[in-house]
Amino acid sequence: MSSHIVVFLPDGACVEAASEQTILEVAAAAGVAIDSACGGQGTCGKCKVMVTLGQPGGRPGEGISPEERERGFVLACQSTVADDLVVEVPVESQRGELQILLQPASGGLEAAPAKDDVPLAQSVGLRLDPPDRTHNLGDGERLLGTLSAQLPGRFTHLEMDLPVLRSLPRLGRQQDWRLEALVGDFDGRGVVFGLAPEASRPGDGAPTEGAGGPSYGLAIDLGTTTVVVHLIELATGGVTRACASLNDQITYGEDVISRIIYSQEHPQGLARARDAARQTINRCLREVTEAHGVQPEQIIAAAIVGNTVMTHLLLGIDASAIRREPYVPAVRSLPVLRAAEVGVEIHPAAPVFLAPCVSSYVGGDMTAGVLATAIAESPQLTLFIDLGTNGEMVVGDREWLMCCSCSAGPAFEGSGLEYGMYATIGAIERLRYHPEADRVEYATIGNARPRGLCGSGLVDVLATLLRASVLDRRGRINLGFPSPRVRVRRERPEFVVVWGEEAGRSDDISLGEDDIQNLIRSKSAVYAGAATLLESVGIEASSLERILVAGAFGNYLDAENAVTIGLLPDIPLDRIRFVGNTAVAGARSLLLGRQARAQAGDLARRMTNFELSIVPGYMDRYVAGLFLPHTDLSLFPSVARRLELAV
Amino acid sequence: MSSHIVVFLPDGACVEAASEQTILEVAAAAGVAIDSACGGQGTCGKCKVMVTLGQPGGRPGEGISPEERERGFVLACQSTVADDLVVEVPVESQRGELQILLQPASGGLEAAPAKDDVPLAQSVGLRLDPPDRTHNLGDGERLLGTLSAQLPGRFTHLEMDLPVLRSLPRLGRQQDWRLEALVGDFDGRGVVFGLAPEASRPGDGAPTEGAGGPSYGLAIDLGTTTVVVHLIELATGGVTRACASLNDQITYGEDVISRIIYSQEHPQGLARARDAARQTINRCLREVTEAHGVQPEQIIAAAIVGNTVMTHLLLGIDASAIRREPYVPAVRSLPVLRAAEVGVEIHPAAPVFLAPCVSSYVGGDMTAGVLATAIAESPQLTLFIDLGTNGEMVVGDREWLMCCSCSAGPAFEGSGLEYGMYATIGAIERLRYHPEADRVEYATIGNARPRGLCGSGLVDVLATLLRASVLDRRGRINLGFPSPRVRVRRERPEFVVVWGEEAGRSDDISLGEDDIQNLIRSKSAVYAGAATLLESVGIEASSLERILVAGAFGNYLDAENAVTIGLLPDIPLDRIRFVGNTAVAGARSLLLGRQARAQAGDLARRMTNFELSIVPGYMDRYVAGLFLPHTDLSLFPSVARRLELAV
Repeated sequence: MSSHIVVFLPDGACVEAASEQTILEVAAAAGVAIDSACGGQGTCGKCKVMVTLGQPGGRPGEGISPEERERGFVLACQSTVADDLVVEVPVESQRGELQILLQPASGGLEAAPAKDDVPLAQSVGLRLDPPDRTHNLGDGERLLGTLSAQLPGRFTHLEMDLPVLRSLPRLGRQQDWRLEALVGDFDGRGVVFGLAPEASRPGDGAPTEGAGGPSYGLAIDLGTTTVVVHLIELATGGVTRACASLNDQITYGEDVISRIIYSQEHPQGLARARDAARQTINRCLREVTEAHGVQPEQIIAAAIVGNTVMTHLLLGIDASAIRREPYVPAVRSLPVLRAAEVGVEIHPAAPVFLAPCVSSYVGGDMTAGVLATAIAESPQLTLFIDLGTNGEMVVGDREWLMCCSCSAGPAFEGSGLEYGMYATIGAIERLRYHPEADRVEYATIGNARPRGLCGSGLVDVLATLLRASVLDRRGRINLGFPSPRVRVRRERPEFVVVWGEEAGRSDDISLGEDDIQNLIRSKSAVYAGAATLLESVGIEASSLERILVAGAFGNYLDAENAVTIGLLPDIPLDRIRFVGNTAVAGARSLLLGRQARAQAGDLARRMTNFELSIVPGYMDRYVAGLFLPHTDLSLFPSVARRLELAV
Repeated sequence: MSSHIVVFLPDGACVEAASEQTILEVAAAAGVAIDSACGGQGTCGKCKVMVTLGQPGGRPGEGISPEERERGFVLACQSTVADDLVVEVPVESQRGELQILLQPASGGLEAAPAKDDVPLAQSVGLRLDPPDRTHNLGDGERLLGTLSAQLPGRFTHLEMDLPVLRSLPRLGRQQDWRLEALVGDFDGRGVVFGLAPEASRPGDGAPTEGAGGPSYGLAIDLGTTTVVVHLIELATGGVTRACASLNDQITYGEDVISRIIYSQEHPQGLARARDAARQTINRCLREVTEAHGVQPEQIIAAAIVGNTVMTHLLLGIDASAIRREPYVPAVRSLPVLRAAEVGVEIHPAAPVFLAPCVSSYVGGDMTAGVLATAIAESPQLTLFIDLGTNGEMVVGDREWLMCCSCSAGPAFEGSGLEYGMYATIGAIERLRYHPEADRVEYATIGNARPRGLCGSGLVDVLATLLRASVLDRRGRINLGFPSPRVRVRRERPEFVVVWGEEAGRSDDISLGEDDIQNLIRSKSAVYAGAATLLESVGIEASSLERILVAGAFGNYLDAENAVTIGLLPDIPLDRIRFVGNTAVAGARSLLLGRQARAQAGDLARRMTNFELSIVPGYMDRYVAGLFLPHTDLSLFPSVARRLELAV
């Protein structure tokens, strides 16, 4: 095994790599963000790069034209480092960070932190008594004594990290014993993990708890496809800034199973998967901190919510047992860890809380979602669906909760579709097609120029095209439909959503038949999961008092359209509510309150896991769902009515 | 500032050093053990080295003869690295490790660990249930559940370190879920910090707690002058092996005050002092482990007992406030730390307990001593003296305890005397001079050839020479005494204790007048401290029911001789008892039992500190004590009687 030097342009990253590694793998390890949607399968064509020096090994990959080949273009996932290479990543293949618009979540899930609750970490302003021979207390004892008096009853025990003790004698005397102590909540034990001079305060500067110099925490939704990071001001609980990014782990596979296989079969697989997740989080956090002028050391806590596999891989814990009988994870709940051991580049001693998981396939994202929606405290019988790459759902009320998960794929996150995109600035989130005028009416996030379609827009486009008979019930485009929007390009039937001219771009934003099939598979997996779960507990969909839907849809989801395409069961529309990204909302609660952290642990133990994959009925239901809305129209009476009207 | 290369022979260590550093400092940093007793003052002459290549800077130092100078000899502490140097360390200047004879301590302080007590760490054999879908518990949850069932009620909470979680899935499956878990007691919280395959056990291998493969702990007495390390088998509490070494910090000063000054005034002073202490401990532990075939990872806990300054410096905590009004330490008690952060090279995640200190000058050694002697539980009014370089003492009973410390110097540890040595193999520990036959009767530790005098031997020699009138009451040698043993060598009056021929060596083992003055200052500091302490609580020495003496005297201390020279108050001899090294005995208790650890914390808070240095009477008493036994013979009536008889 020989190794070569690879230089990436325009980044300028220069790394050494083994000859059998693909260019995409090397780029991922080097932190060079190359787009990829198929997990390195060579099918999406998004990772096209130009090799300007050296002869890569492997294959150029499919979808590269002879002219492109001539100019050195290859698919980064199919070509290997057989030589020293200079690789240019064209703009189209660069994966940029995604700017997220911060709007109040429709679910109203962002209440201010309770005054008497204990955040995961807090900055406490202290005025210590000067040293005194009579009491003969050490600096450390005086600090802990003052802290204990200031936060009475909050902690079972208070202690101090060694580096804090090292800085205390000098800093205390320099600052005349006016200090800010960073105090973490480690399962009820208070640990002083940082120390700073007293922050300049507005007003007279009387010691006040928690109101010190601005301290921040991170609420992190570590998704299989997308990572979302919110920067939270701890004193107010306000979300200061947010960032989303594709998870760099995508290089190692699109879904959790392929990630496990990669991490298991490659000698460095687990470490690479871990590093890719860390790298994604750290890139997002740099984005939010730099944009807001916050120093990494000012971030003193993080709550991370991920599915079970994401949680394992982030921590470098072998997840291979998750895909083997009897499908047991290495761990469901973790102690509060330190940022340095998790690899999150904030204050290195800061506490990091990982949302506890229920089972191998129902993770911390579901625990956080149940927490954020408070369905475990509600008398209403609720079905809650968190539609991520791993679609997780729970049914129940304050008496009982039964949960399961299905592999939905990332289509509704916009991944794997030609013009799909995450719910961020420029994503089309609402859409209606008026066939009589051949006009598409749409709204984009941030009212920006349209760049693509996010989940809610995709739901709308499917429903509106079905109603307009542009689509048949199998998801086929009616090529006889009298509109120039309906066309065949590169042998692909497609519908032009926005003309390039209108969008201010050289190409048209379209939805192809392959994209539509992808979305149908995804919605069918979710619907079949919900139906199987409901059947397992003997509940008719019509008895549901609420369906709550969470996911990366943006700020909007049209309930009628979601039912029309058969994503959600056909119940009265006023019982369906979109609740936004409950994973990140839950992460925020976990960051801000000990009660939430304790409740998450209870929930993870209390929720009953239902293993969908071993129920034979699930697969039949999935296949039956590969229609719009379903093969069995009796399950969707209101849709049948509307479609008959429309037809 | 330029830098040069220094090579030390015969070690072969090759290091780069700044030109203003002394050869002794460079050697200390490089781990080359050069003897030194004066703390680099240039007065003891023990650090003589031969520069065979290059021109050192500084001065050659005093006590180097012209011939020696010609051959390249210099004092390592006075010469600087002005050039690239090759430095040969002659055998006389090499500081070897000290082999300690393990004998039961006379105080009977080594009881076996209580069955239901919780050691600082233990290896627990576990058989986990295999993974099972019904319970759907992660590997981590199953391990903690099994552990909790096996150690019921021992811990308030159980958790697992991240590296353990990382190794559990694979190791558990490989080993069919038969494992050894290393469990540390972190103030009542049980932390699994290590994992190993099930140890091969004698018998049928039924799971038994604590009886796993041999796991060891260290009991460490971190003295100002001498560091003692005991290797303890945790299951039995037995001391397997012991090692003592001069503390490498001696390079930076003889007593705690000069160490603080060094650590404060040199830019790298604190780090150097810390590293020297770590280095000494690690050298000792390598000695005990290599001799016993134990791997560092098998050592799963350490209890460290040191005075307050030693504790600070080991941890790299600024100790400078200790020598400034109002003499307050940075910290008195510490949380349980990890070996890696303390720098002790055992299992890196192993818990390390540091004995809590009472005040700036009464440290963890006193807490451990009070613990080991159980005087805080006794109805008897006791004076307990721990005679180290820092002489610490306490008076009281189970109702109250008052403590203080004095700067005794290292003379009774054998340091700073020409033929002084630590209480180890070959040290003369008992001695009597028979003037009529001009014969010295002596016993050495280990019955080895005599190499020098340790503390108990020094007490004996002073007393016997005083009785024989070889010494007068001011400690002057009577040069008219009719014995060839009394002589003047290099202008120094001295008494030959053992003729070289008899000792099998080229030089005679002698005690000079300067050594005697050194010992008298030391004993006077201790006596004055005890007398001042007793006066402060209004107690006459005659009311004391017990005097317990601890220290590095070896296995023996002659009470009558100790009173004769005025080291101890003149009370009936049957009330005086030598209790050995209570610091290391206390460290062993702290290692083996949670009750002892809790009690140590209570003791440190409960003992009242008495600041000797600010009491005017102390200095007067000290000066009055610079006689044998004292200027005021009325304080030593029994000694006066015996000396009159002897005279």
